[in-house]
Amino acid sequence: MRDLIIIGGASAAQSAAIYAIRAGIEATVVADEYGGQINNTDKVENYLGIKSMGGPEMAEKFVEHMREYDVEEKKGLRATEVRKKDDETFEVELEDGEVLESRAVVIATGGHRRKLDVKGEEELTGKGVSYCAVCDGPLYQGEEVAVVGAGYAGTEAAAYLTDVVEKVHVINRSEGYSGEEITIKQVREAENVEHHENAQIKEIYGDPMVEGLKYEKDGEKTDLEVAGAFIEIGTVPNSGISDLVETDEGGYINVNPEMETRTEGLYAAGDVTDLGEQQLVVSAGQGCQAGLNAAEYVKEKKSES
Amino acid sequence: MRDLIIIGGASAAQSAAIYAIRAGIEATVVADEYGGQINNTDKVENYLGIKSMGGPEMAEKFVEHMREYDVEEKKGLRATEVRKKDDETFEVELEDGEVLESRAVVIATGGHRRKLDVKGEEELTGKGVSYCAVCDGPLYQGEEVAVVGAGYAGTEAAAYLTDVVEKVHVINRSEGYSGEEITIKQVREAENVEHHENAQIKEIYGDPMVEGLKYEKDGEKTDLEVAGAFIEIGTVPNSGISDLVETDEGGYINVNPEMETRTEGLYAAGDVTDLGEQQLVVSAGQGCQAGLNAAEYVKEKKSES
Repeated sequence: MRDLIIIGGASAAQSAAIYAIRAGIEATVVADEYGGQINNTDKVENYLGIKSMGGPEMAEKFVEHMREYDVEEKKGLRATEVRKKDDETFEVELEDGEVLESRAVVIATGGHRRKLDVKGEEELTGKGVSYCAVCDGPLYQGEEVAVVGAGYAGTEAAAYLTDVVEKVHVINRSEGYSGEEITIKQVREAENVEHHENAQIKEIYGDPMVEGLKYEKDGEKTDLEVAGAFIEIGTVPNSGISDLVETDEGGYINVNPEMETRTEGLYAAGDVTDLGEQQLVVSAGQGCQAGLNAAEYVKEKKSES
Repeated sequence: MRDLIIIGGASAAQSAAIYAIRAGIEATVVADEYGGQINNTDKVENYLGIKSMGGPEMAEKFVEHMREYDVEEKKGLRATEVRKKDDETFEVELEDGEVLESRAVVIATGGHRRKLDVKGEEELTGKGVSYCAVCDGPLYQGEEVAVVGAGYAGTEAAAYLTDVVEKVHVINRSEGYSGEEITIKQVREAENVEHHENAQIKEIYGDPMVEGLKYEKDGEKTDLEVAGAFIEIGTVPNSGISDLVETDEGGYINVNPEMETRTEGLYAAGDVTDLGEQQLVVSAGQGCQAGLNAAEYVKEKKSES
C-alpha cells in the first residue's frame, strides 16, 4: 500500500509532491502528461520570483524541481477512478486497468478547454480548429484567424496572436473583454484586432482545412473568412474522476481552506477545486497545503496501525 | 486618493502588488524593510520552480519582480495604523506622521520572532542572544551554541547551525522536534547536536557577552556554557495595526478564502492571517488572491463614483 497518490501533472500536483515528501511520506504522481494549461501559455509573468518565462519552460522547471525528490512517477497514464476499498484504503484505477492502493489521495487534475459545440468544430479540430493559440498560432503567419471568446483565455490568446498573425478577429458572445487589464489594454491597442461583439457562432466550415466561420448577430448572419479558429471559451474542471467528492454546479470540487474534500484522506488542489483564482501561484500554494495535510493524515494513520 | 495601499515587504505584499497593477489599478507598497522572514532563512528549497536559493537572494528576486511594474514604494517607513476616514476611504498612518489615503488596503505585515521573556534576554540581545541563526550563526564557528525551541523555526535553525558551529544544544520545553521531516532527520543524524528535552530556560547570563544559560528540568537546574543563544520559538503576527479586523486568540487576522477581513475593502494575506500554512508559496498565492480581489473592489468603487 502506498502512502499518497497525487493525480495530476501540473503545479498543484508538483507542489503537493514536494511538500509531502519533505514531510516524510512517500508520494506517487499519476499523470497522463506534465505541464497542464501553462503548456498552452505563451509567457508567464505573474508567478512571483520568475519575471517572465515561456509556459512550457516553466512547466519543465516545475517537473525538474519535483524530481529533486524521490517521487514515484506513473507518467503517460490517465487515472480513471478514485474509490474506496475500505475505511483505510483508496483505490486509484489507471486507464490500463492497473489499480493502485494508497492511504491518501490528492486530486490535482486541473481542467481542459471547453468545446464550442457547433457544426464543423469536431471534424476540423487539428485542421484549423485549435484550442491552443500558443501551440498553433505560429502556423498562421500572414493569415487572418478568429479567436472565439473574450474572457480570460480569449483575451490572452488574442494578445498573443496580434504579434503572430496578420489579423485577429475576436468573436465574442457578449461585450467587452475580461482578464488582466494589462492584457486587455494590449488587445485594445493592437491595430490588427477586430472585435465582433454579441456574435453567436453557428458553424465553422472548410474542406479539408478551415476556410471560415459563420456567426449570427442581431438576427443577421455574417460569413467571416479565416484560416484558423482558436476556441478559447474557458475550461472545464477534470473532476469526474470520483464519487467521493462533492462538486459545485460548475463541476468544481468543493474543498475547505485545508484542501479537504468531503471524504477523509481525499484532498484536491488547483484549478479542479472551487477555491481561489485559477492562477499558477495559487495552485502551487494549494498544492503545498494539500501535500502537508495529506502527509500529516498519512503519518497519523500509520502510527495508529 | 490612492487606489490601493499594500502594507508589508515580503512575498504576500509583492505578489499582491504585481496582481493588482496587472489588473489595472495603482498600488503603493509601504514597508519598513523588504524580505521579511526569508531574510532569516538559509536556503529555500520548497518554493515550486526554484530548486534551491538562499533566503535573502530569493527576497531580492521577489522585489525585483515587483519592480517590473509601476509600483509606488514607501520604503523604510513602518505603517502604524490603518483606520477609516469615511465609508470610501482608508487612512494609513506612517511612523513619521504622514497619513496616506486609499480606497482599499492589503495588510501583509507577516510576523516577528517571539521573545522568550527570561532574565538576561533583553540585555544580551545582539551580544550573543540572537533571533536569526542564519544571520548570526557564522559568528560562532568553533563554538558551542544553544537553539531555544524545537518547533519549525528551532528545527530549521538547528539544522543550519550543525554545519556552522562546533556543537548545537537544542533546548526544548517539551519533547521531539516538529517541522519538515527532511529537516528533522538532518538534525537527528547530525553528530554535533545535543537535545535537552523538557527543559525550561530560567536565565541567560554573561558580561558583556553571553557565557551560558540556566535551565530547569524535573526540578533540577543545569548550567550550560554556550557562546550564543538562538531564540527560535516561533513568530507573533504583526496584526496590531488596525481595529478594523478581527483576530483569533493567537493574534492572527481572520480572513475568508477571498482574503477579506471583516471590513469591506480591507484585505489581509500571508503569515499575518489565520489561514493556511506559513509557507512562502502559500503567502504568494494569498497575495495574488488579495491583490486581484482588491483590484476588483477598487474598480467597482471607482465606477460608482
